[in-house]
Amino acid sequence: MKKKVGVILAGCGYLDGAEIRESVFTLLALDKNDAEAIIMAPNIEQHHTVNHLTGEEVNHNRNVLEESARIARGKIQDITKVNIDELDALVLPGGFGVAKNLSSLAFKGAEGKMNPEVQKVIEKVHKANKPIGAICISPAVLCLALGKEAPEVTIGNDVGTAQAIEVMGAKHINCEVDEIHIDKKLKIVTTPAYMFDDAPISKVALGIEKCVTQVMNFLK
Amino acid sequence: MKKKVGVILAGCGYLDGAEIRESVFTLLALDKNDAEAIIMAPNIEQHHTVNHLTGEEVNHNRNVLEESARIARGKIQDITKVNIDELDALVLPGGFGVAKNLSSLAFKGAEGKMNPEVQKVIEKVHKANKPIGAICISPAVLCLALGKEAPEVTIGNDVGTAQAIEVMGAKHINCEVDEIHIDKKLKIVTTPAYMFDDAPISKVALGIEKCVTQVMNFLK
Repeated sequence: MKKKVGVILAGCGYLDGAEIRESVFTLLALDKNDAEAIIMAPNIEQHHTVNHLTGEEVNHNRNVLEESARIARGKIQDITKVNIDELDALVLPGGFGVAKNLSSLAFKGAEGKMNPEVQKVIEKVHKANKPIGAICISPAVLCLALGKEAPEVTIGNDVGTAQAIEVMGAKHINCEVDEIHIDKKLKIVTTPAYMFDDAPISKVALGIEKCVTQVMNFLK
Repeated sequence: MKKKVGVILAGCGYLDGAEIRESVFTLLALDKNDAEAIIMAPNIEQHHTVNHLTGEEVNHNRNVLEESARIARGKIQDITKVNIDELDALVLPGGFGVAKNLSSLAFKGAEGKMNPEVQKVIEKVHKANKPIGAICISPAVLCLALGKEAPEVTIGNDVGTAQAIEVMGAKHINCEVDEIHIDKKLKIVTTPAYMFDDAPISKVALGIEKCVTQVMNFLK
């Protein structure tokens, strides 16, 4: 039996949704580790939709689940329909959508609120002592979700987000793009990925492969 | 000096644009081969836009260049602005958008027409004796573009498309998802990728890595 690993997507595009490359490398690393990806997203409107050519907001908004389905090639579940108990682990790719759609971290920092369904999945997986991987901006959202648990996480070199993490009572760890940090006690693995905006794509892929592989190692 | 390799995208999503994973693995393989990706797309409306959750067409259409910019993280050029002579090679990821937006292959098969700007890039690169890699459905579109040159290409196990390729006078070669076919004379490298709809993502990635690496080997 393959291990089932939940992957929460936040749309499709780094400015308003899931970071596409990070999501794809997460799915690749799960397959390389012989795990089954259970891809899910909330069935909600995006906070907004951004033209990725110009960086400008556009009028016609999009739905997080429908856009995430582009990365998932249609094989995706509404997060409210997922059998959470069946999951062996969870991985959260990054992208601004994680801070805009899955939470309000992008607007309120440490005072941000979680989408309640995303909160529920993270909480249930964590309370069952199962490992969680978080990529790019997702570690900060994970800190928001876990509150007093206060994990050690990476965020790259973004000073504002690192401060928000410390305000939440969690601990920010410096980490290179192709490296990971492991919070062994809480079974949380994090990697900065495109928090380093200009990182070579192969280093981003390597960091994510290490992150996912370590998540799977917790299950051995 | 890094080799410059053109990558033509057709949107963002396999049903109406570029196949996202194939595009990402193309960029990854180029970086692993120490090449610089010159990402481009035509600045045109998509043929149509498809909800990837339901498979249904939606009312509000999208622009090929703007959607491709999601995969490119904004680092993309209008195909009419690209300095084609500067390219050392070209790679075409797949997705229905290649057959719907970059050509009319999806609707007219062997009688399809090429987008004139895409045609121009392919022709110029090929006439300069530079290698071209084509993934998934793109080999069929490449046959359309090259006409009498009649390359040997892969298309997976899609009988209709294989027949269209033969009608164009080109030759279809059977090939597994994690393998490639090399037309040494014409310097064309092809791999089926998600023409095998249910292929494991790691095999798709491997086929594309081999394809891109062989394209780069032609430049040594």
